[in-house]
Amino acid sequence: MIPYPIRNQFRHTIGQLDMPPRLLLGPGPSNAHPRVLQALGMRQVGHLDPAFIKLMNEVQDLLRYAWQTENKLTIPVSGTGSAAMEATLANLVEPGDVVLVGVNGFFGLRLVDMAGRYGADMRQIEKPWGEVFELDELKTAVAQHRPTILALVHAETSTGACQPLDGVGDLCREHDCLLLVDTVTSLGGVPLLLDEWQVDAAYSGSQKCLSCPPGISPFTLGPRAVEKLSRRKTKVANWYLDMSLVGQYWGSERTYHHTAPINMNYALREALRLVAEEGLAARWQRHRETAVYFWQGLAELGLDCHVAEPYRLPSLTTVRVPDGVDPKAVTGRLLSEYNIEIANGLGQLAGKVWRVGLMGFNSRKENAALLLAALREVLA
Amino acid sequence: MIPYPIRNQFRHTIGQLDMPPRLLLGPGPSNAHPRVLQALGMRQVGHLDPAFIKLMNEVQDLLRYAWQTENKLTIPVSGTGSAAMEATLANLVEPGDVVLVGVNGFFGLRLVDMAGRYGADMRQIEKPWGEVFELDELKTAVAQHRPTILALVHAETSTGACQPLDGVGDLCREHDCLLLVDTVTSLGGVPLLLDEWQVDAAYSGSQKCLSCPPGISPFTLGPRAVEKLSRRKTKVANWYLDMSLVGQYWGSERTYHHTAPINMNYALREALRLVAEEGLAARWQRHRETAVYFWQGLAELGLDCHVAEPYRLPSLTTVRVPDGVDPKAVTGRLLSEYNIEIANGLGQLAGKVWRVGLMGFNSRKENAALLLAALREVLA
Repeated sequence: MIPYPIRNQFRHTIGQLDMPPRLLLGPGPSNAHPRVLQALGMRQVGHLDPAFIKLMNEVQDLLRYAWQTENKLTIPVSGTGSAAMEATLANLVEPGDVVLVGVNGFFGLRLVDMAGRYGADMRQIEKPWGEVFELDELKTAVAQHRPTILALVHAETSTGACQPLDGVGDLCREHDCLLLVDTVTSLGGVPLLLDEWQVDAAYSGSQKCLSCPPGISPFTLGPRAVEKLSRRKTKVANWYLDMSLVGQYWGSERTYHHTAPINMNYALREALRLVAEEGLAARWQRHRETAVYFWQGLAELGLDCHVAEPYRLPSLTTVRVPDGVDPKAVTGRLLSEYNIEIANGLGQLAGKVWRVGLMGFNSRKENAALLLAALREVLA
Repeated sequence: MIPYPIRNQFRHTIGQLDMPPRLLLGPGPSNAHPRVLQALGMRQVGHLDPAFIKLMNEVQDLLRYAWQTENKLTIPVSGTGSAAMEATLANLVEPGDVVLVGVNGFFGLRLVDMAGRYGADMRQIEKPWGEVFELDELKTAVAQHRPTILALVHAETSTGACQPLDGVGDLCREHDCLLLVDTVTSLGGVPLLLDEWQVDAAYSGSQKCLSCPPGISPFTLGPRAVEKLSRRKTKVANWYLDMSLVGQYWGSERTYHHTAPINMNYALREALRLVAEEGLAARWQRHRETAVYFWQGLAELGLDCHVAEPYRLPSLTTVRVPDGVDPKAVTGRLLSEYNIEIANGLGQLAGKVWRVGLMGFNSRKENAALLLAALREVLA
């Protein structure tokens, strides 16, 4: 034995890993598809192995399908959704750039915080949480602020609102502005056509409608965004997320940047393979049908949705907490008695709504039926 | 069906995931322990689930054991090792801080690149790749540059050299300087006593001597580093890695910051549980014995190690490429004929050495014996 003064106060003996069988119907993570969990545990190869490089190409193409984009720079970022969010800003923002963010929920505020750290001249327009921006409101704001980047949240995970993007791409092109869109809670579950809508930069998460565990996150930049990146006068102020380097590993050069999360890429491949098998049209339809079934059930329980129907996300529903009900007592009982996770409101909506996700593999009638039955009992 | 104009050019039909049975004896990733791969696929819970919070505490304590530290802020960063590396710099560097880096390999250069992006006044001392710094050299450099942070690479993955840290902690305290140490290729395999050595900040990777897949990475700050963080005048210029926020999720507040990579945390827990079961002394001894066996075998094949024995890492050996041998042809044949991955040299050592990792679960006599046998045949 080597005579080092080893201390054992933290050398705990702990048991084999076990986790309760939760049904994850909150805003994410949602339960991974069983096939995805199986892929996750596949034996490893190196991050420059020919077998892994083949997988990288498959992941990139299937991401392009899921997002409906031809963007070359479409890759998974080696972190959770917030890392991909930050990657879009870190790469596109140079100090002094005017960035206009539509803030109608928690994740709009996060965009403001992040972009500010990269030296952006931040501008905001605001709407009450749960509402969306009209095209005319965006037109006025863009004309007034003349931003370099307009950032909108397509699917606000904190409010359950779906921001329409019709006409926004044209607006941004008229004003030579990049359109950056948060698709964390829409990719793979909600109609989303990046190229058709002329979105220049987008990011998402793996653990929402893609039914993959968190830890890897879709990221894409279109040609106009890549051009801005290539014209930067300053280094990207974030080494790990610097796409001028990461892009070389995912591009034809295959230059080592950081070790890719091998097994998370296995899982994402399987999740995207499931999307391609099902097809986007069928998948969007399934999410819609499950949501409509759930909304009808809520109405029968006398519960109201926070978001007006035309803008309501099928993947994430905010349910208003009835007067006199303690929202945390309800989520606590759902978890402890039924093994069902739903979430409480965040930020402005804390205490006012519950957040229910019916995403990816979890977007099935039986899950909605079970939650409705449990809610009926708990609220009785 | 919803009438969206869906395009199918990237909707590939791909087969079930399969990967060749590689023995990963390069600089990382190393093969995960089978128990770790099993834990990885455990069903998910939410990132604020009581069961997950219990796991977070276990992971933190077992990390403290592995690193031999009592640091409160000891957590896994939600990214690969480079993210944890960047996290130390992003949090500790404020614009204008003098950062002195000991550069004797590729990862010293990476520290310089990263710290520069956070506005550090960068200073470097250099040694040939494969050598280490003498304490006197460090004393002279610290006295000359008066840095706020001295950053050293304990285990240089590009060279296989182990930087002695005796006396460096005292030196840094005398000059009121923080000691930041890269332990990517030492944690869990090479003697390392953070508190005893008075290290103020350290980071590591999961996919080296811990035998966990890449995608989560150990990070720790000691009290002096935390104090510097708390005294910052500027926001951390990196939202995802901002420990003033992340630390609240891992601390008693449990405030949501970003969705933790749930399954990667399962895997890391199992990897650290294996470290605690074996014990650090036995584990370090095992790595040393496997390495010595391998080095003896190399000598019998007439192959030289690049690093002098006293500073040679047991976890990572750089083997000099003999005159007249094409190094890439050898690594190519090892992979295609034997399913063994070793790596070529990086940076200054490209074309001059191979890099062989005998790390964690892979640090076993039979793996060294197999590689020696394969090398004997390929070099014949």
